[in-house]
Amino acid sequence: MNTKFRPLHDRIVVKRLDQDQKSSGGIIIPDTAKEKPIQGEVLAVGKGAVNEEGKLRPMEVKTGDKVLFAKYAGTEVKLDGEELLIMRESDVMGIIE
Amino acid sequence: MNTKFRPLHDRIVVKRLDQDQKSSGGIIIPDTAKEKPIQGEVLAVGKGAVNEEGKLRPMEVKTGDKVLFAKYAGTEVKLDGEELLIMRESDVMGIIE
Amino acid sequence: MNTKFRPLHDRIVVKRLDQDQKSSGGIIIPDTAKEKPIQGEVLAVGKGAVNEEGKLRPMEVKTGDKVLFAKYAGTEVKLDGEELLIMRESDVMGIIE
Amino acid sequence: MNTKFRPLHDRIVVKRLDQDQKSSGGIIIPDTAKEKPIQGEVLAVGKGAVNEEGKLRPMEVKTGDKVLFAKYAGTEVKLDGEELLIMRESDVMGIIE
Amino acid sequence: MNTKFRPLHDRIVVKRLDQDQKSSGGIIIPDTAKEKPIQGEVLAVGKGAVNEEGKLRPMEVKTGDKVLFAKYAGTEVKLDGEELLIMRESDVMGIIE
Amino acid sequence: MNTKFRPLHDRIVVKRLDQDQKSSGGIIIPDTAKEKPIQGEVLAVGKGAVNEEGKLRPMEVKTGDKVLFAKYAGTEVKLDGEELLIMRESDVMGIIE
Amino acid sequence: MNTKFRPLHDRIVVKRLDQDQKSSGGIIIPDTAKEKPIQGEVLAVGKGAVNEEGKLRPMEVKTGDKVLFAKYAGTEVKLDGEELLIMRESDVMGIIE
Repeated sequence: MNTKFRPLHDRIVVKRLDQDQKSSGGIIIPDTAKEKPIQGEVLAVGKGAVNEEGKLRPMEVKTGDKVLFAKYAGTEVKLDGEELLIMRESDVMGIIE
Repeated sequence: MNTKFRPLHDRIVVKRLDQDQKSSGGIIIPDTAKEKPIQGEVLAVGKGAVNEEGKLRPMEVKTGDKVLFAKYAGTEVKLDGEELLIMRESDVMGIIE
Repeated sequence: MNTKFRPLHDRIVVKRLDQDQKSSGGIIIPDTAKEKPIQGEVLAVGKGAVNEEGKLRPMEVKTGDKVLFAKYAGTEVKLDGEELLIMRESDVMGIIE
Repeated sequence: MNTKFRPLHDRIVVKRLDQDQKSSGGIIIPDTAKEKPIQGEVLAVGKGAVNEEGKLRPMEVKTGDKVLFAKYAGTEVKLDGEELLIMRESDVMGIIE
Repeated sequence: MNTKFRPLHDRIVVKRLDQDQKSSGGIIIPDTAKEKPIQGEVLAVGKGAVNEEGKLRPMEVKTGDKVLFAKYAGTEVKLDGEELLIMRESDVMGIIE
Repeated sequence: MNTKFRPLHDRIVVKRLDQDQKSSGGIIIPDTAKEKPIQGEVLAVGKGAVNEEGKLRPMEVKTGDKVLFAKYAGTEVKLDGEELLIMRESDVMGIIE
Repeated sequence: MNTKFRPLHDRIVVKRLDQDQKSSGGIIIPDTAKEKPIQGEVLAVGKGAVNEEGKLRPMEVKTGDKVLFAKYAGTEVKLDGEELLIMRESDVMGIIE
């Protein structure tokens, strides 16, 4: 991601680490395999959501973190030809350390 | 946009930067292309939402920002013959810098 | 509107400035034209919503403002034979200045 | 309404001023006429809703007010043989002065 | 109700004063009659709901009140052979004095 | 219940006092009888829900209480071979004293 | 679970203690048996949810706890070849001591 993209609020940009199942040519991935959780690397992090009083809630996830998230979390975007995901921090289930 | 339009609360006016797929004559845009995120330029920004205590939450997006937003975000409006979008700041996924 | 009507809370009374498409006799308005945003003039404004603590949140829109609102916003009312709309301020997308 | 009825919280008792369309014998009221807003007179008013802190939010509508409300607002009740409506103040669109 | 029953939070126990339409043998009650509001006598009252700060919001309805409530409000219970209703105070539309 | 089970937050463990209708062999329970409210004895009580500020809201129900609850409240669990119910205190309609 | 996985916010990682019904070969588990609650051991616990004021609400469940949870709670994940569940603490019904 060469383009500098700043996610708003509590959003993050994630690059999938699993092989992309949709782009795989003729290889059929069995059902059970498709159920496995999706891993990704965090490429960019917003400043955090602003609460009702105008105070910022800082983010727990940071750039470089390897995260686990639900299969259908986030919105797919294409930045500089790369398929990325923009999701909210609350869609992240945890950090693989 | 020559008409001076002031969006209310946390709304912004956005001009699409992608080519308008609906107005394209006979050219069929393939399905995958249609899935790409929509970019736009912010033309006008509201003062921000007012919280329950009457305090203003200032906007993070400002006029001139190039933003990324979900395909179906906002309401289409026509101001001075220009096709524009009015959306809430929360519909903006991030800022391209 | 000769009858004095005081909208409650955060409601406003709006008179459409667009030609009324429903009352137009035999003239068919093409689909695209019907999609354009609705403009109106604000005829009356409530005092504002009262929050949980009993404090009033003042209105941003005022009588005489020319506003843009979503096509299906508000409830149609007839006051003194005039077709008007009562809507909440949050249904107003912005003010044309 | 001879029976003394005290509405709870933010409820009000309203007597329709429009002719009752359902009780009209054989006369067909045209569709457009049926769409007009419903007017009524406020016969009784609750003390107001109590907020989370136990404070009372006073009512803006008072007994004797002529109000405008949406066609399907409230619950029909019969007190002393009179067809009345019990609704919340938030169902009232405004006061005709 | 000989059994001592203490409703929890903002619940009340109500005994219908209207004739029970379901237990009536062969007598058909006309449709309009069935639409009339349900009256009842309050037999027991909870201490009130506890708010987020742990403070009690006292009840407005008290034992012995004759109340009006919507036809389908509450849950039917049988205590000591009596058919009673347990409902929340917010289901009560008002008090007949 | 010999196993020590500590319900979390505002949950309670309840043992039905009514005869279990599902386990009854060939005896058909008439429809009206099945509608009667469910009674139970409270076997264990959580510490209470924690509010947004981190303060505990204490429970009103305590171990040993005989409670009335809606037919479909709670989740069925089997602890030490006993069929029990885990429900939230808000599912309890009241206490039989 | 050799991989160090840190659940975010109020999430926990749970390993089922019941025999996995889906992986059981040809043995049919009768319907009633399948209804029994699911037990598991807590392998990892998040730091707790952060409230609107930015304060942390600490977790009540801790690593090593044997918990009871609803059959369909959580999301299945595979970490180091182990089938685990990530759920929120609010999905846990209680702790078996």
